[in-house]
Amino acid sequence: MTPILFYGVPSGCSFGSIVALEWLGLPYRLCRIEMPEVVSSAAYRRINPVGETPTLLTSDGRTVSESLAILNHLLQAAQPGGRFAPGRPAFDHLNQMLAFLNTSYFGAFAPLWYAYETQGDAFSTQALRAYGTEQVAQAHAHLNTLIGTGPWLLGEERSLADAYLAGIARWTTYHDVGGLSPYPALEALYQRLQDDPAVRFAHAVERQEEARTTGGFLGEVSLTQALAELA
Amino acid sequence: MTPILFYGVPSGCSFGSIVALEWLGLPYRLCRIEMPEVVSSAAYRRINPVGETPTLLTSDGRTVSESLAILNHLLQAAQPGGRFAPGRPAFDHLNQMLAFLNTSYFGAFAPLWYAYETQGDAFSTQALRAYGTEQVAQAHAHLNTLIGTGPWLLGEERSLADAYLAGIARWTTYHDVGGLSPYPALEALYQRLQDDPAVRFAHAVERQEEARTTGGFLGEVSLTQALAELA
Repeated sequence: MTPILFYGVPSGCSFGSIVALEWLGLPYRLCRIEMPEVVSSAAYRRINPVGETPTLLTSDGRTVSESLAILNHLLQAAQPGGRFAPGRPAFDHLNQMLAFLNTSYFGAFAPLWYAYETQGDAFSTQALRAYGTEQVAQAHAHLNTLIGTGPWLLGEERSLADAYLAGIARWTTYHDVGGLSPYPALEALYQRLQDDPAVRFAHAVERQEEARTTGGFLGEVSLTQALAELA
Repeated sequence: MTPILFYGVPSGCSFGSIVALEWLGLPYRLCRIEMPEVVSSAAYRRINPVGETPTLLTSDGRTVSESLAILNHLLQAAQPGGRFAPGRPAFDHLNQMLAFLNTSYFGAFAPLWYAYETQGDAFSTQALRAYGTEQVAQAHAHLNTLIGTGPWLLGEERSLADAYLAGIARWTTYHDVGGLSPYPALEALYQRLQDDPAVRFAHAVERQEEARTTGGFLGEVSLTQALAELA
């Protein structure tokens, strides 16, 4: 079967997995999951018991969740024994950067999402927003250091870490926590990503506008269809 | 050269990488890094520019940071082409569990650490503690679901995800956010890990008590010695 990526909207971190699929040129389909309604439904929990996106339904009918696991799965499927094979420095470098993005960057936004989605008292909301804003600024400073002369996260060559970054960095605007201009290397990378055809494609998919694949996208399926294939 | 793991004390998540090194039987040395003083020093930033532990100095003189990248590096070095090789289901399953632990579990404790380490006003501290406590409880419930009949995180066989869990789950006591008794599968796994010789070894190392290796531990080195070897 052709793999299916279950991606969450609005503004899910699944965005990075869509960009990665396009870059790798693998054949795939998409299944749109509205958050928080559908992602927490009993039907979707058959795909992911903890009710989160993204999840990948692989060609051999297994489910793989968590961006970091999906990106590693896709990369090793597309380029077995390649530059990112275990034992090579790039394998470690990519995992290090993905883990940093996963904890220190994605995680910095967690209190902002919580404050946004939860009806708390004004004091709590303010405290969580202040904490999240400080964490995001620290992550931006670290990312700017790690990029160095770049121009990509891992140096001279683009990698799936850049795809994952594209999906998270846009939350800076979503949560209004200050722009990227104090972090010139990061800002330049973010702008470069906005011009990428796969990033444009992922934006169009999220907005349900006409989306032109430059990879192996084969269309959308409903959750009902996907569950029927899984069974 | 023999690899060196830079581990943070007190109560760093480096604990999981020490357990993993013991389980895998690889030769290694340790370098103790006091937090927050030494971890944020200019000397240590030559090892890790973002000032975090753990970092691994590999046999070929490279630094690898972030638990998830270190665990993957060690596993693939110890068991190349083994059960966890790319393309095999266990590769994906392990990465998925490590990523869940990294974001949803480690991340749940982040506001508790911040409240603990930062002198904030009483309202902010209370808000962050309430938020963190709720996130930890949710992560515990999800972990209990994911373990199922287990008995290990990935099912019938122990994996490095269990090593990583051992280092994080003890923070439940450190931050006094309620015990594990509402989560019987998780509590049973945590107790089983406390009886493991490698977990006992890691506790003894942290406490600077007599530590009996059942793996390939070859002694401690100072940061000064480690930097000399790196140069």
